[in-house]
Parts: sequence; C-alpha cells; structure tokens
Amino acid sequence: MSRIPRIVILGAGYGGIVTAIRLQKELNYNEADVTLVNKHDYHYITTHLHMPAAGTDDPNNARVSILKLIDEFKIDFVKSTVVQIRPNEKKVILEDGTLSYDYLVIGLGGEPETFGIPGLKEHAMNIRSINSVRLIREHIEYQFAKFKREPHRKDYLTFIVGGAGFTGIEFVGELADRIPKLCREFDVDPSLVKIYNIEAAPTALPGFDPELVQYAMDVLTKKGVTFKIATAIKECTPEGVILADGEEIKSSTVVWTGGIRGNRLVEEAGFEAMRGRVKVDEYLRAPNSDHVFILGDCSLVMNPDDRPYPPTAQIAMQQGENCAKNLVASIRGSQLTSFKFDNKGVVASLGKGEAIGIVFGKKMRGGVAAMMKKIVDMRYLYIIGGVPLVLKKGRL
Amino acid sequence: MSRIPRIVILGAGYGGIVTAIRLQKELNYNEADVTLVNKHDYHYITTHLHMPAAGTDDPNNARVSILKLIDEFKIDFVKSTVVQIRPNEKKVILEDGTLSYDYLVIGLGGEPETFGIPGLKEHAMNIRSINSVRLIREHIEYQFAKFKREPHRKDYLTFIVGGAGFTGIEFVGELADRIPKLCREFDVDPSLVKIYNIEAAPTALPGFDPELVQYAMDVLTKKGVTFKIATAIKECTPEGVILADGEEIKSSTVVWTGGIRGNRLVEEAGFEAMRGRVKVDEYLRAPNSDHVFILGDCSLVMNPDDRPYPPTAQIAMQQGENCAKNLVASIRGSQLTSFKFDNKGVVASLGKGEAIGIVFGKKMRGGVAAMMKKIVDMRYLYIIGGVPLVLKKGRL
Repeated sequence: MSRIPRIVILGAGYGGIVTAIRLQKELNYNEADVTLVNKHDYHYITTHLHMPAAGTDDPNNARVSILKLIDEFKIDFVKSTVVQIRPNEKKVILEDGTLSYDYLVIGLGGEPETFGIPGLKEHAMNIRSINSVRLIREHIEYQFAKFKREPHRKDYLTFIVGGAGFTGIEFVGELADRIPKLCREFDVDPSLVKIYNIEAAPTALPGFDPELVQYAMDVLTKKGVTFKIATAIKECTPEGVILADGEEIKSSTVVWTGGIRGNRLVEEAGFEAMRGRVKVDEYLRAPNSDHVFILGDCSLVMNPDDRPYPPTAQIAMQQGENCAKNLVASIRGSQLTSFKFDNKGVVASLGKGEAIGIVFGKKMRGGVAAMMKKIVDMRYLYIIGGVPLVLKKGRL
Repeated sequence: MSRIPRIVILGAGYGGIVTAIRLQKELNYNEADVTLVNKHDYHYITTHLHMPAAGTDDPNNARVSILKLIDEFKIDFVKSTVVQIRPNEKKVILEDGTLSYDYLVIGLGGEPETFGIPGLKEHAMNIRSINSVRLIREHIEYQFAKFKREPHRKDYLTFIVGGAGFTGIEFVGELADRIPKLCREFDVDPSLVKIYNIEAAPTALPGFDPELVQYAMDVLTKKGVTFKIATAIKECTPEGVILADGEEIKSSTVVWTGGIRGNRLVEEAGFEAMRGRVKVDEYLRAPNSDHVFILGDCSLVMNPDDRPYPPTAQIAMQQGENCAKNLVASIRGSQLTSFKFDNKGVVASLGKGEAIGIVFGKKMRGGVAAMMKKIVDMRYLYIIGGVPLVLKKGRL
C-alpha cells in the first residue's frame, strides 16, 4: 500500500472509545489515519444513565467530552450521524458526508427491542442516551406538576418500568429514592405514588443468583416498588399498560428496559444478523470480512457453552482493547489475537447505599456491593480518561 | 351580644393575610373569634411568581407558611377550599365543613380573564399560584427535553406570552434570562428559541409612562423577546395561537397573563359584581352589607376620577390594614375609617439587574429600579413577617 491505511470507527460508546484510545497509544506516527465518528460530541457512560433518568444525578456526570478522551493530533473526530454502511464500496455514508475506509469498526450500539408489543415504541420511553434520560427526568417531574392541577389524575403518579433486568432494577432503585424528594418539592402525599416493575420472565434479573435476586426485590419492595414478575405486558397505550392477564394499569409514564437489539444499520449493510447482532469471528470480525470489526451491542460472541454473552459495557470494553490490538496487527501483517471474554463479575445498584453483585466469583450485597459498584465505575473512568477523569467524575 | 363575635377571613392572599395579622395585634383578649380560611397552608407572594414560573428562582422563595405569620393562640387557621358563600345565612360552605360568621372578609383573589377568546382556558397556562408556576416551569423544561428527541418540532422551542401587562412583562424578562441556561443544560442552539409577547392594547404596559415602556421593550428585545403589540389573539389551539390578522404562531407553550377577573364565588353569592368584582363602599363593605368586607381582586375601588384602581398587591395590602381597623371599630361600635389608596408607585422587573418604575412620583430604570424592586419586596416581607422573614426570604 502506498498510502497509509484508513481506519474508521463508528460510535464512541464503550467499544468504539476504547478502540480509539488504545489505537492512539499503539500506533506509530503515520502508521494509520484514524477517524472516530459519533452522533454527539460526548461519550456517555451508559451504566450510569439510570441515575439522571430518575433525576438523582446530573446528566452531565454521565458524559465526557470526546475531545477530552482522544488526542486530536492522532485521531480525527467527526460529529455526525451514520446513515448507511456500504461494505462493498468500503464507504460509510454520513448525514453530511461520506468516509472511505480500509478498516471499519462498527460500535454503533443497540436499540430498544420491543418484541412486537403494540404501543411500546410509541408510548414508552427508553434509558439509552443523555437525551432520552433527560426526557424521562423532565417527564417525571412534569407529571408531579400536572397532578397538582388535576388531583383526580392518579395515573400521573403511577410509574411503570417494563423489564426487571439490570437497567430496570437499577432505575426503579433510583426512582424509589427520588420519589420522597419530588413529593416534598411538589407537596404531594407520597402514599399516592406507585412504582411498578413488570417482568415477563419467571424471575427478576434472569440468570442471576436467586439469593441475591431475592435480596434485591426485598430492598426495592421496602422502598415502595411493586413487582409483577412472570407477567407480560400485552400492550402499551396512551393510558398505561395492559397485562397478559387483562389487568390494566393506568399510568402516564412507561419506561421500557425489557430488551436491546443490535443496530438496524448493521442489517441494512447486508451483514447476516440476528436482531441486529452479527456473530463475529474469534478476532471480532464480521463473517468473511477481514476489514470489518464489530463490537458491543451489534456483535454476538458465544460463551464456551455456545450461548451468546449478554451485551454489557464490560464485554464491549474488552472487545475494544482486542479490536485495537487486531487492527494494529492487521496493518503490520502480524498474527491477530483471539478475543476471550474475562468476566470480572457484575454489580447492580439498588439506589443509594444498596447493591448486589458477584465480583471475581464472590457474592456481595448492601453497602459493600454499593461501594464495589462505585469502584467499577471509577475503574472505567480510569481506563478511558486516567486519573484526571476519575478525580473529575468519580464519586465515592 | 352575649357571645363574642366571629370573624371569618376567606383567603390568605395580600388582603386576607394583612387583615389577619393586623387583627391579631389590635384585638383584645376574647374580643373576637377570628378564623382564617385558605386553600393551602401557605401564603404566596404573587408579585414574585414570575421568577419560579420561568425557573429563575425556587417556588419556595415565593411562599411562606401561614402558621409562621399568624399567632395560632389568637387566630384559628382552617386549610380548606371555599365552595359557597351564603350571606343571608351568614355561613360559608367549605369543601369539608361549614363556618358561621358575624363578620366576613372576602379576600379570595382573582381568576384569569380570557375575554371569551376560544381555547385560552383549555390550552394556556396562568401565573397565579405556586402550583400553576411549578407547572409552567416543568412544562418549559419538558419542551427542551422533547425537542432533543424530535428536532423538527420547532414549536417546542417557541414560547408565547399573551398579555404585556406587568405580569407578562416581568415573566418574559425572567424567561429570556433562563433560556441560555436551558440551552446549555439541554444542548440546544439558542438561536432556535423564540419568545413572543403578544398584547392587544396599542402599547405594552398600558397606562404606564411611555418613555419607560419604550425602555422596557428595548431591554427585552435585546434579550431576545419579539413583541407583537396592538395584536389580538383570536384563538388558542393545541398547536399554538392564531392572531387577529390570521397569522398562526406554532407553539407548545402559551402562558396567558392578559387579564384578571374577580372570583366566581362572589357573583354566585349574589353580590352585584362586574367580572367578579364588587364595588365596595368607602369602608370596603359590600353594598348594603354591614358585615361583609371585600378586598383585593374581588373588590372594585374607584379613584378620584371615578375609574377603578387596577388590582395590585399594594392596594390589597392597604385594604387589609383598613379592613382590620374597621372590623375592630365595628365590634367596638366606634366610627369606621374611609379607605384611601396611597399609591406609592410601581416597579416592574425586566429580569436580572433590570427594571423600570415610578416610585413616589420619581421615574427610575436599570439597576436603580431593580434595587428598588427588591426593597419593595423586602418591605412587604417586613410587613407580614417582620425582620425574621426579611432575613429568611429577602435577597438584595
């Protein structure tokens, strides 16, 4: 190749940003042109979004300016929205331009999966970006203000969270913490407020340790959350939800956390995908595509039992590290490294001072787990932004 | 009379609260039973509501707990809503009870006057209570959050204020101050935000000094307000407003400050009223009713030219003082005192650090007027709550 290879990274989520940061460390001067494309000029910390969504933290604490994370002398940043990926032409069409690549990294993130439940797309909100969680926060506050003018509208004070996976559980924990403050602010009787967490699976946090799940439900029930487990939502309407058993819960606020699928752009690009997720090879490349790496929510990586790992921040970050390594190896013509997920565990917050988790195989709960959650958050800040970012955004 | 007379005061607005506070000073032990009735357990400072409505101040800074203002050993407080006044039976029907009186003070405050403009009642918000301004504030913030999800909806960022009287002008001043902060908070381009102040009269602040009116409009125009003066609103719809000349302005936020009328309960009680306002006698009593005093927005007091004084906080407070004096005189059988309005002037805020006013006949503008506005506010706090309240709520 006479000219230096071009690497285009789509998305500055966990996978994309870690790829970019590692590349700028590993690449030699003029070894490659790297361009990072992202819709916003900030990276957001998805695992923190349940807090600004409930209003228990400022949304700005869940985002970092991308230009603070990357070295602009080494990596170009383009703030734009991807419209189409054309693998055959090795081109990416942006809202306002076109980029050619030699190597492409797709880290575009997921989209809410509504499983075809009618009305969810139209009437439910999602915890998936800074914009979406600001909407949820403002929507919730607005319901309290509206209730004071129409006190017969109890549905204004009924909050439905669909899905009791990690996001759903973490969000209801924060919301339950916020309610007493909102009640004081708007002079509302707290006993009028209802929070429902509805899950179709036979348990909350499916696949998680049952003892810890029970602990989580006990903590949240005590905080005022009503669980409806093994209960599917049949329909979401402008008035609330209708459950599979026919029960209707009237509510002006439905937040859907029940599923994530890959990005539609990946399917539209012609990659073979299941719900927008592409089963990548051991080097994280799309099938039969030496030049396209796929990370995070758009990728499907199998565990040793040949079942897909759930899409998490942790796996996306590790994919980013592996991807950067394999990009460098590809450019240098050296041997690529297989991706192996190293599951360090998982911690779920249950609101202030409460959490559950399994870390390095050890079960934990309560204050210890809550502390561990903060350590995990700070470790991530350290990985992407070093000590300065930990000092700026990290809080114990 | 063998038993001591009962005084019932309806409403703890400017007129009612001043009446109550003066009565508890003037009356001797066991000279009268005084009961103050109010919908909320707090008094609010109406002249301050434009700030929490725009979100430039906390609503709690515009209210004071009634029990901090009155002496419960001397005055009973009933938190309830008045349903009906029955002058013939000397009874007041509350939402949850009945009160008998020998003397009644009606200080129930006004209601928005929409002059029959279709849709205003349904689709516009009003600056008239703590609840209503919290609604406006939350509504405005919610529009910014919604715009980020639907960037084609420019109507979310268009704010219409109907009426350029004192409330309208003061509100647009605060709103213009708030917009840059909201734009930063929600990552919105400030050039997309529009504020319209629409007034049917041939001038803003009708009746006010034309030079100061021009100053006010210049200050507010510079802050980004677009005035449409001598322009009537023909209709308010869920999509915005339609002007008399047929122009439609699309907006999801219409705040109506264009008029105040008296309380409907006053008309329903059988008092002769014009738009809910009763022309009281020189002692502030309803016509042919020695035992009913009417204050504030429900009363009509004529100036020496036989035109009604506009309903303001200032006149209501002075009425409260006079009313308390006349109640004591009525009980003691001594001579009542005629009410004479002593117009000390008026100051209108135009946002932070800017105001216009005429005080003791002297015109003022800019920082001096803004300072005078704060002095006026603090003087009121001093009247109702003494030095402790000034220290708690007053801010220079």
